[in-house]
Amino acid sequence: MKIIKTIEELKEFRSSLDGSVGFVPTMGALHDGHKSLIQKSVDQNDHTIVSVFVNPTQFLPGEDLEKYPRKEEDDTKICETCGASAIFIPDANIMYSDKEPLVLAPNKFANILEGKTRPGHFDGVLRVLTKFFNLVKPNRAYFGKKDTQQLLIIQNYINTMFLDIEIIPCDIVRERDGLALSSRNAYLSEEEKCMALRISKSLQNTLNFVENGDLDSRSIKEEMLRILEPLKLDYVAIVNKELEEIQKVEEGNTIILVAAYVGKTRLIDNMWI
Amino acid sequence: MKIIKTIEELKEFRSSLDGSVGFVPTMGALHDGHKSLIQKSVDQNDHTIVSVFVNPTQFLPGEDLEKYPRKEEDDTKICETCGASAIFIPDANIMYSDKEPLVLAPNKFANILEGKTRPGHFDGVLRVLTKFFNLVKPNRAYFGKKDTQQLLIIQNYINTMFLDIEIIPCDIVRERDGLALSSRNAYLSEEEKCMALRISKSLQNTLNFVENGDLDSRSIKEEMLRILEPLKLDYVAIVNKELEEIQKVEEGNTIILVAAYVGKTRLIDNMWI
Repeated sequence: MKIIKTIEELKEFRSSLDGSVGFVPTMGALHDGHKSLIQKSVDQNDHTIVSVFVNPTQFLPGEDLEKYPRKEEDDTKICETCGASAIFIPDANIMYSDKEPLVLAPNKFANILEGKTRPGHFDGVLRVLTKFFNLVKPNRAYFGKKDTQQLLIIQNYINTMFLDIEIIPCDIVRERDGLALSSRNAYLSEEEKCMALRISKSLQNTLNFVENGDLDSRSIKEEMLRILEPLKLDYVAIVNKELEEIQKVEEGNTIILVAAYVGKTRLIDNMWI
Repeated sequence: MKIIKTIEELKEFRSSLDGSVGFVPTMGALHDGHKSLIQKSVDQNDHTIVSVFVNPTQFLPGEDLEKYPRKEEDDTKICETCGASAIFIPDANIMYSDKEPLVLAPNKFANILEGKTRPGHFDGVLRVLTKFFNLVKPNRAYFGKKDTQQLLIIQNYINTMFLDIEIIPCDIVRERDGLALSSRNAYLSEEEKCMALRISKSLQNTLNFVENGDLDSRSIKEEMLRILEPLKLDYVAIVNKELEEIQKVEEGNTIILVAAYVGKTRLIDNMWI
């Protein structure tokens, strides 16, 4: 597996490849969730390129950019074990210039939910992905459903910018107890991990409602809030795939999302119904 | 030559091509300036795709979007005669969605000169080019030096977004009397055409200064203003290739630009020194 640090090396490597290329953009600190993305890409493509880049433009001032876990050595081993062809680990100073175009995610999708609490976050995501997509020229790109809003914004970007890339959404990988895997789980104490389980439980519980044909969003939300108590919530939302709030769950076109603080750590999770 | 009207046809056509692809984006009403771009592309590439699209997002409210000359039939013949492989003439409603990302040109280059009078103009240019580049995937793209600020902003876009496209700047084509060719010349009466010659004359005259070693920007500008009188000016600027105003002309790194109104028509011209 090739370890690539510069733009020129990546361009050269890419132009040496024949066949299909899968791309897995990550911020590193790779866990089993990332592994599932990489493995899927390796299965579906002749070559897989993984990027490991803690992208500064998607962090807001005061967020955890500095303390975000960095584990380049472990990440490299994981990529190699999973069968990736290359890992791209650039420094931020080669990715950005102080005079370059900006990309703004569309208001409709970007200023709600995550974007309301983290204004500009999705602009940073699209900005770095524009560069990655131009460099890697992937046939397929792999994104976890854990960042569902990101996934939908990227799919909209691909569709409206006419990019010839197939976006492959990948299921959330969870601990056996239900906790959705996240690099930020590293911030949690054992006690906080227990508290955090309320998030996945509140989502899991909605399935009972749906199975019983109780599709009213308000009742479902009320029960979720009961389960989530006493966590400090950012949002609990029941939306369709256009991210519009809906009054009634519609199977096949509903996503239930939670963002909550466990101690100082902000966690997100969701369930597609 | 193929006449392409839809995104799907263009994608299909592009994927059928082997070899190098040159791209000439235009707003139609093709004149000899455009022809020189198309011919250069035909010379340098296996295939040439010309787009003809009066891009609404690069016009400001109150500008000449509606009256901008449209000559699809003539344009098609010209492209065919020049040896283009395809002409892409989309409707605006297939190019844009009301919920899609925006691209913002960098302040440093985009809010001065043309961008000061036409705020948002270069955002619209980059927005449509992002889409065209993604669709056409050209090896080379051809732009006239007449729109010098646009050319430099596009080169910056290519460099900072890591696009693998070679930008080919093409010299301004002029009438025998010096008037720079422009689709907007169609708005000029015979008398206005005479008045408009002051623009190219004022630029041509700067060469006398440079040949005499008189490189002081202020003296050069003063003489230009004398020649341009009585045209209503938008700007006369002497800048380097970073579009920074310079006090002294430096051969090989200087561009002198004029924007002026002749009657109601706004014309631009420039000279690289």
